[in-house]
Amino acid sequence: MIIIAVIAGLLALVYAGYLALSVNKEPMGTPKMRELYEAIRQGSKTYLKRQYKTIAIITLVIAVLLYFAFDSKAGKPFTAFAFLLGAAFSLIAGYVGMDIATRANVRTAFAAKSGSSKPLRIAFYGGLVMGLFNVGLSLLGVTTLFYLYGKAEMIIGFAFGASLSALFAQLGGGIYTKAADVGADLVGKVEKNIPEDDPRNPAVIADNVGDNVGDCAGRGADLFESTAGENIGAMIIGSALFLVTNNFYFLIFPLLARAVGIFATILGVPFVRSKSEDPFAPLRNGMIATTIFSLIGFYFLVMYTLNSIALYFAGVVGILASTAILVITEYYTSKKYRPVRDIAEASKTGSGTNIIAGFANALESTALPVILIVVAILASYYFGGLFAASNSKISYHLGGVYGTAVATMGILSVAGMVLGLDGFGPIADNAGGIAEMANLSKKMRNRLDPLDAVGNTTKALTKGYAMASAGLAAILLFQAYLELVKVNAIDIVNPVMFTGLFLGALLPFLFASFAMRAVGKAAFKIVEEVRRQFREIKGLMKGTSKPDYSKAVDICTKAAQKEMIIPGLLVLLFPIAIGFLFGAAAVGAFLIGATISGFILAMLMNTGGGAWDNAKKYIESGVFGGKGSDAHKAAVVGDTFGDPLKDTAGPSLHVLIKLINTISLTFGLLFVAYALV
Amino acid sequence: MIIIAVIAGLLALVYAGYLALSVNKEPMGTPKMRELYEAIRQGSKTYLKRQYKTIAIITLVIAVLLYFAFDSKAGKPFTAFAFLLGAAFSLIAGYVGMDIATRANVRTAFAAKSGSSKPLRIAFYGGLVMGLFNVGLSLLGVTTLFYLYGKAEMIIGFAFGASLSALFAQLGGGIYTKAADVGADLVGKVEKNIPEDDPRNPAVIADNVGDNVGDCAGRGADLFESTAGENIGAMIIGSALFLVTNNFYFLIFPLLARAVGIFATILGVPFVRSKSEDPFAPLRNGMIATTIFSLIGFYFLVMYTLNSIALYFAGVVGILASTAILVITEYYTSKKYRPVRDIAEASKTGSGTNIIAGFANALESTALPVILIVVAILASYYFGGLFAASNSKISYHLGGVYGTAVATMGILSVAGMVLGLDGFGPIADNAGGIAEMANLSKKMRNRLDPLDAVGNTTKALTKGYAMASAGLAAILLFQAYLELVKVNAIDIVNPVMFTGLFLGALLPFLFASFAMRAVGKAAFKIVEEVRRQFREIKGLMKGTSKPDYSKAVDICTKAAQKEMIIPGLLVLLFPIAIGFLFGAAAVGAFLIGATISGFILAMLMNTGGGAWDNAKKYIESGVFGGKGSDAHKAAVVGDTFGDPLKDTAGPSLHVLIKLINTISLTFGLLFVAYALV
Repeated sequence: MIIIAVIAGLLALVYAGYLALSVNKEPMGTPKMRELYEAIRQGSKTYLKRQYKTIAIITLVIAVLLYFAFDSKAGKPFTAFAFLLGAAFSLIAGYVGMDIATRANVRTAFAAKSGSSKPLRIAFYGGLVMGLFNVGLSLLGVTTLFYLYGKAEMIIGFAFGASLSALFAQLGGGIYTKAADVGADLVGKVEKNIPEDDPRNPAVIADNVGDNVGDCAGRGADLFESTAGENIGAMIIGSALFLVTNNFYFLIFPLLARAVGIFATILGVPFVRSKSEDPFAPLRNGMIATTIFSLIGFYFLVMYTLNSIALYFAGVVGILASTAILVITEYYTSKKYRPVRDIAEASKTGSGTNIIAGFANALESTALPVILIVVAILASYYFGGLFAASNSKISYHLGGVYGTAVATMGILSVAGMVLGLDGFGPIADNAGGIAEMANLSKKMRNRLDPLDAVGNTTKALTKGYAMASAGLAAILLFQAYLELVKVNAIDIVNPVMFTGLFLGALLPFLFASFAMRAVGKAAFKIVEEVRRQFREIKGLMKGTSKPDYSKAVDICTKAAQKEMIIPGLLVLLFPIAIGFLFGAAAVGAFLIGATISGFILAMLMNTGGGAWDNAKKYIESGVFGGKGSDAHKAAVVGDTFGDPLKDTAGPSLHVLIKLINTISLTFGLLFVAYALV
Repeated sequence: MIIIAVIAGLLALVYAGYLALSVNKEPMGTPKMRELYEAIRQGSKTYLKRQYKTIAIITLVIAVLLYFAFDSKAGKPFTAFAFLLGAAFSLIAGYVGMDIATRANVRTAFAAKSGSSKPLRIAFYGGLVMGLFNVGLSLLGVTTLFYLYGKAEMIIGFAFGASLSALFAQLGGGIYTKAADVGADLVGKVEKNIPEDDPRNPAVIADNVGDNVGDCAGRGADLFESTAGENIGAMIIGSALFLVTNNFYFLIFPLLARAVGIFATILGVPFVRSKSEDPFAPLRNGMIATTIFSLIGFYFLVMYTLNSIALYFAGVVGILASTAILVITEYYTSKKYRPVRDIAEASKTGSGTNIIAGFANALESTALPVILIVVAILASYYFGGLFAASNSKISYHLGGVYGTAVATMGILSVAGMVLGLDGFGPIADNAGGIAEMANLSKKMRNRLDPLDAVGNTTKALTKGYAMASAGLAAILLFQAYLELVKVNAIDIVNPVMFTGLFLGALLPFLFASFAMRAVGKAAFKIVEEVRRQFREIKGLMKGTSKPDYSKAVDICTKAAQKEMIIPGLLVLLFPIAIGFLFGAAAVGAFLIGATISGFILAMLMNTGGGAWDNAKKYIESGVFGGKGSDAHKAAVVGDTFGDPLKDTAGPSLHVLIKLINTISLTFGLLFVAYALV
């Protein structure tokens, strides 16, 4: 049966390759556009090369340590190899995302010549290449290692490696993209009153590079490790059921569920078309189709392998939760609803009230997702418990936990499609930028603008999805951790457990402070550089001479590389320190504390940032004075604050909460053996 | 021995009365100043009258419900009476704070005539009236009820009543003060370029009223219920030790410890003098003296009553923790150190980078307080455990918990002095405002300005203290809750407990969103009103005609009244709903979740807001272009955002985490009896 997972994984890669070729066949447009393509691509590649070098050094050092800690006795580098493979695959997934995005950007822009449906298709295909490649590679990696090692616990190193490199990729990319974006906007839009992506702005290439290395490569690595972590976590729990029931399907169900997800995604692709004017409609249709195919596929899969309608319902809970989180996120970030409109209206009285209203909205937006996750966990646990009640060998708790695992696999089944929509965002954004910089006709640019707006929405939606999925992944990995270290209860009345919980809750705040500060510092440098160029390069404002784009690219690259190290090490060492100081159970409390506070904080940041962005866009659509008005200027300030929240700190928190879990899973048995307390 | 507590309580009231008389003897100054005094006092009284009416209705309804739930069987309204008494006392403490503040404001301003030491003394005495009255009344209330009822568990209604009315007082007052402040600043400072407290600004009286009803009355009610809650929580834990050891001192130790604190505070007052130029020095001297007297007094008290050097060390942990939190808060909010200077520097590139840098700082500032609280809990628990080891009747855990109770009483011992410093802040602030509005000489105003700046620091410091003390109070009440409902362990591996924990962690975010939105909405209305007056009242800008102050006062009053109801009810009903749905243990998890996330969020808001404020003040002192520069304008935006964080949402969270604990203590046995799950 495992062969089905391999087939699905390969199919995803082949289909991604086919889509990539079809994107690549499209023309790149004018010579100016080629030039921009080269500049963006070059900047992105240079950045990723440097970033990957840094990550490679860190992962190699850790791999050697892992070898001595875990593998040297057996003489076979099981853990170290899995770790390196995970790290490498995660980086490859990120690189491919960047590569296809830079190719699709320029082609999307040029396709606007023929109408608005072709650019939509190119951008979506580009995003889907990233999505399918990602889920395919992750499934193949996990399946292969499982085949080689034979035990789910042994491949946790794969998830650890993937998480670790994803943290650096997401954080470094996030710092890069927002430093450039904020720096470009603050001088360009606010001080000089020139439009976004104006070629006179010295930071404009850096800004576009940032979309590719932050949103594409970063998010790609993030979701790669999400899928890997959830998959392996579910298998570790499944192996506990396999042990008592001897039904092998419990163990490999996660692999098969992901295969179903890949089939559902590929089947959903043809539904991405529509005759309506709204470019969001076709994307939504694709999403709905994939969801329905998943619901159907899950039924047959669960009934055939696990033969329990209760567990199928657990899966349905997960699939529906993934839809619900998209709806909730849309409510809080779309121009159509109260929250964004309130923020836009508050901008009328200045940036102070804009920020206050936006922050109030951001705080509020955490509530429904938390309630949703809680309900999903309770419901799927309940269904798992029902299933256990019909099987005397399985305890209620183990059944319940398996129910949450099945629900998580349900959420995961639409991951490929969601990632595709996510990739659509930066591609449409870049296409708009290239059209602006290449001076394409007003008509073409008008065709691209709605895509950019929809891209903003899909980016916000998928961040909601990514966070919900990260939350469930973390909880799954936490349960797997408990299985591993044989901790049955974590009593927070015990002050040591309370300490773990409290310090865990602190970590996301501390980490986010590093991320925000890094963006602030780097943006500050960019602002000074852009101001300097406007001051010193004669004729820049008139357009008679060219800015020095590479300087801004260079500043961002250096800043991102420098600033990602310390917060990365903080996340790496914090749980290990807790483990050796306070023991394995306290680490469990730590994980729960960090998961809960990380989830809430990330939701606040992602949704809040998205709403600020769209409040600005709402004003730009002509209300409250439109572009250039005082309200608009106030809204730009809010957007500037929201940017690093939603594109640097927030998404990095997704990775953080999984990374600390995979670290703890890797080191768990050492905590048991060597803890001080 | 209880008589000592009564004597100390009465002494505090008498001494407060004496100080109040000595303040009241001072002259009020010019007729213009009298007029301002009347306007501010009238506005404050009107507001409090309306607010107290609303609170009275809510508390009466709840008292009736409490009577039927708890008292009707016995036929004696024990719970309802304690509840009403707590609510009434908390409001009285708030009212007295407002009353003395409005009296001291104008006198402080006029005293600047004779030099700078007299205004310092008047403002400090004014603050101390509030501080001493507060701790005295709270001690008398608890002692009297304990004497009447005989059981610590039975007086928890007193803390519940105090918390509930404190929540409304702090939230309503906080909304009022920041709506007025933000509204006044946004139009006055940013749009019209007129100084703070300029009499031409139509919101200036409302702004000054806000200081008295928010900072004074609100904080007064907040700390009243803090001291009451900690006291009763410690007594409930003490009664468990009394039960097994038959040593009555375990039960009444908290009352005696507070008496020691009152003596130490009164003894510390004469040390508030100094020959240095820095007005912070005398206040610091007073604080240091009180701390030393507490350390000495605690030694004799603990050795005489509990006869355990280990428990004395637990008390020392608490006293030192209260000093440490002041030092940490000062680092993050004072102009002298990196955080504030970084924010000021980031203002050079605009409000966007100011907000990003400030938020990074706010996030970071949560770390050390969390670590401090954790260390304090672990250390005092350890000392308590040591003590238990020498007494065969007391379990290690019970001893440990009593250790944390003693530590909390240690923190509480300096409460009177800290509250005095806290009250100093708004009085100095108002004095500066009155001096500005009454056109006092430049020389006098220059003598008042440093007091205002110091007042800002002391306000920020005491908020750090209030939050640390609220955190420990919540943990104490939580332990008391476990004693009451006989829950020994809360296992967060159980999904129902996890649910409680997660929803608890959510509550502070949701509550804060209401608080922020309320300020945003009200400030929006104020801005529109102020703009309207500047537009419609001819000669207002030239100073030839007068603004309509009462309109702004009215808008703030209505907005605050309207907006405080829903978040208040949310806090009231949330834990009750959890209790009846998921049971008493899940409420325990809920309390821990809310305490942890509330603590972190409040620290973020209080310290972050204070730092934004002082970054603006740092620029105003002349750096980065000084007043009126672009950097200054950017810093004003940051301060505008920080204002409702630090004066509305943050301080209300202190109250929130204690209120949910006292509610749960009140309803705990009903949860045990009637929960669904």
